[in-house]
Amino acid sequence: MHANVTAAFERVAAHRTRFDARFEQYFDALPGRFDVPVPSRYVPRCLELLREFSMRGGKRLRVVLLYEAARLVTTDEVPGLLEAALSIELLQTHGLVHDDIIDDAPLRRGGPSTYYAYRREFPGQDATALGLAVLAGDLAAFLSTQVLLEAPVPAELRQALLGIHTRTAAETVAGQLADLERDSHALPDEEFLHTVTDFKSARYSVLAPLTMGLLAAGEDLAPHRARLHRYARLVGISEQMRDDFLDLFGPSGDDTAAEAKSTGADIRSGRRTYAVRALLAATTGTEAALVEGALGDPGCTDGVLHRIREIARTAGVDRGLKAEIRRHAEAASAEAASWEPYWRADAVDLFRGLPMWNVDRMP
Amino acid sequence: MHANVTAAFERVAAHRTRFDARFEQYFDALPGRFDVPVPSRYVPRCLELLREFSMRGGKRLRVVLLYEAARLVTTDEVPGLLEAALSIELLQTHGLVHDDIIDDAPLRRGGPSTYYAYRREFPGQDATALGLAVLAGDLAAFLSTQVLLEAPVPAELRQALLGIHTRTAAETVAGQLADLERDSHALPDEEFLHTVTDFKSARYSVLAPLTMGLLAAGEDLAPHRARLHRYARLVGISEQMRDDFLDLFGPSGDDTAAEAKSTGADIRSGRRTYAVRALLAATTGTEAALVEGALGDPGCTDGVLHRIREIARTAGVDRGLKAEIRRHAEAASAEAASWEPYWRADAVDLFRGLPMWNVDRMP
Repeated sequence: MHANVTAAFERVAAHRTRFDARFEQYFDALPGRFDVPVPSRYVPRCLELLREFSMRGGKRLRVVLLYEAARLVTTDEVPGLLEAALSIELLQTHGLVHDDIIDDAPLRRGGPSTYYAYRREFPGQDATALGLAVLAGDLAAFLSTQVLLEAPVPAELRQALLGIHTRTAAETVAGQLADLERDSHALPDEEFLHTVTDFKSARYSVLAPLTMGLLAAGEDLAPHRARLHRYARLVGISEQMRDDFLDLFGPSGDDTAAEAKSTGADIRSGRRTYAVRALLAATTGTEAALVEGALGDPGCTDGVLHRIREIARTAGVDRGLKAEIRRHAEAASAEAASWEPYWRADAVDLFRGLPMWNVDRMP
Repeated sequence: MHANVTAAFERVAAHRTRFDARFEQYFDALPGRFDVPVPSRYVPRCLELLREFSMRGGKRLRVVLLYEAARLVTTDEVPGLLEAALSIELLQTHGLVHDDIIDDAPLRRGGPSTYYAYRREFPGQDATALGLAVLAGDLAAFLSTQVLLEAPVPAELRQALLGIHTRTAAETVAGQLADLERDSHALPDEEFLHTVTDFKSARYSVLAPLTMGLLAAGEDLAPHRARLHRYARLVGISEQMRDDFLDLFGPSGDDTAAEAKSTGADIRSGRRTYAVRALLAATTGTEAALVEGALGDPGCTDGVLHRIREIARTAGVDRGLKAEIRRHAEAASAEAASWEPYWRADAVDLFRGLPMWNVDRMP
C-alpha cells in the first residue's frame, strides 16, 4: 500500500475513534441539556435507545468527510467541527429512526430498529410502539439542532452552519418524499432516481459535511459550490447503486453481516431501486411478470428471489450495475482530482481515493 | 364590557388577522427556501397539505401570547416577533401532524388530520400514507427552525431565541413520551398529570411565546423565569382540564363544532386524562368496571358513553373538574396580576384576563 494511502486510512480510523468517544460523552451529558419530567420511565428509555442506536452506528463516513473537508484548508484544530459532527450524526439517527418506521424495517446496523425495539417492549401494543418511535426520531432532530447552537465559534459562522443544517434537513425530507413517489412509477426514469439519491442522501451525507467542514475552516464557499455538489452527487449515486446491488445480489465476502441488509428486502418492499429498475428494464414476458409479482410481496419466497437473481445475472444486470457504480465513483474521483489547485494535497487525495474504496471491494 | 377588555379583544383580533396574512405570505414564498426535486408531485403536495393544515389553525393563542409578551415591555414594533410567531406555529403544525399519527386521529381543527388526508389519497396503502405523514411532520419541524434563523435581529438574540425553540421542542417531545406513559398507569397520580401537561403543552404553548416575546423586546429573563413558568403551568393545566372535560361531557353551546373534538374520544382511545382520572377515582364496583371496559375500546358505543357520563355527573365529577379548572385559571390570573410592578399595565391586564376567557364560557 502507498504510504499516503496508509496515512489516509490511519486518519480515517482516528477520526472515527475520537468521534465515538465524544459521542459517548455527549450522551453522558444529555440529561442536563433539557428538563425531563420526573418521575418518568419512558423519557430515560427513549434517550437510552437513541444512544444505543447512535453508538451502534456505522462507519461515520459523514464525520470523516467533515474533518477531512476542514483539512482541505488547514491541519490546525478547527473549532466547531465537533458540534457539527455531533449534529450530523444526530440528524442521521433522526432520519434512520423515522425511515425504519416508514419502511417497517425490523433491522438496522446489525440490531433492531428503534421501532422494532419498542415493538418488542410493548407486545400487542403496536400503536404505542409506533408513537414512541415517532417521538424518538423527533427528539433526535431537535437535539441535532441544539448541539450545533453550542459550537464555540463566532455567531455569524454558527448561524451559517445552522443554515446549512436546516436547509439540508428539509431537502433530505423532500428526497424521502420523492423516494416514496419513485415506487409509484412502473419504471422510474434513471434521471429521477439520480435526483432522489441526490436529495435523499448525497446532500446530507456528503455535501453538508463538506460544506460545513470547509466553512468552519474559514473557506469561502461561493466559488466552490458547484464542484462540491458534483462530487457529492456522484459519490451518492455510486454508493446508492452499490447498496441496491447488494440488496439484490447479496453482500461480497468482505462485507460484514451487520453492514449488509437482508438480501431481497427491496423487492419484497416494492422499492424500485437502481437494481430493480435495471432488472425491469432488462426483462419482458413471463420473466417481467415474475419480477412484478414479487415486487411489494412481503411473502415472496427465497426461491423466487433466487430465480429473479438468476434472471438478472443472465440479463447482465449485475455487470451493468457494477460498471455504472465504477463509472460514477471514477467520475467522483476525477472531480476531487480537479480540486488540487485550491486545496491541500493530502486531503484532496483522500477525497480522490474515497469513492473507490467500496468499489474495489465489490463481489 | 369594560373599555380595556374591548381594547384587549381588538388587539387579539388584530394579532390574529395580521399573523394569518403573514403566514400565507410565508407559504407563498416557501418553495424558494430550499431546493425541491424536479419533477415531483409528492413534495408540492406535502407543502400544500402543510399549508392547508397550518392555515386552518385555531385561535393562534401562541401568537397572541408572543405579541402581548413583547407589549409587556414596549408598544414599539419589535423586530423578530414575526419570525418567532411563524416558527412557533410551524412547530405546532409539526407536533399536531405527528400527534395525529400517534393517536390515529382522523380529525383535527374541523378537517382531516394530515395522516388521514394522505390515507384518503392512498386508499389501501396505509403504509405509504403513514410514511408521508411522518415526513410532512418532519419537514414542518425543520421549517420551524429555519424561519427563526431569518429573524432580523442581532445574532446573539437570534441565537437565544433558537435556544428557547430547540429546548422547548425537546421538552415537548419528552412531555409527549410522558403522556403515553400516563396511559400505562391504572390511576395516574394527579401531580404526574400536571407534569405531563407542563411538558406536553404549557412549555411550548405558553412559556415559549412569553419568553421569546419578552426576550425580543429586550427584557432580561433571569429574574422572571419562575413567575413566567408558574403562569404557563397554571394556564396549561386549566386549559388541559377544560379539553378533557369537554371530551367527556361534550362542548358548551358556545364552542363551535370545529373546535370541539368528538366527545368520548379520550375514553375510546384509553387516554387517562384529568377527566378520566377523576372518574376512575370516583367509582367502584360495577361502575368502575364499566369505565375500565370502555377505556381503550374503539368500539365503545354512544350508549355506554352516555351511561358513563351519567355516572360521572352523579358522582359530581363534572362539578369537581369545573371547580379545578376555575381554581387554576384564577391562580394564573392572580400570578399575572403580580406582574404589575414590572411591566406595562394594558398587557398585564390581558394576561390576567386570558385564563378566564374560556372558563367563563364553560357549559
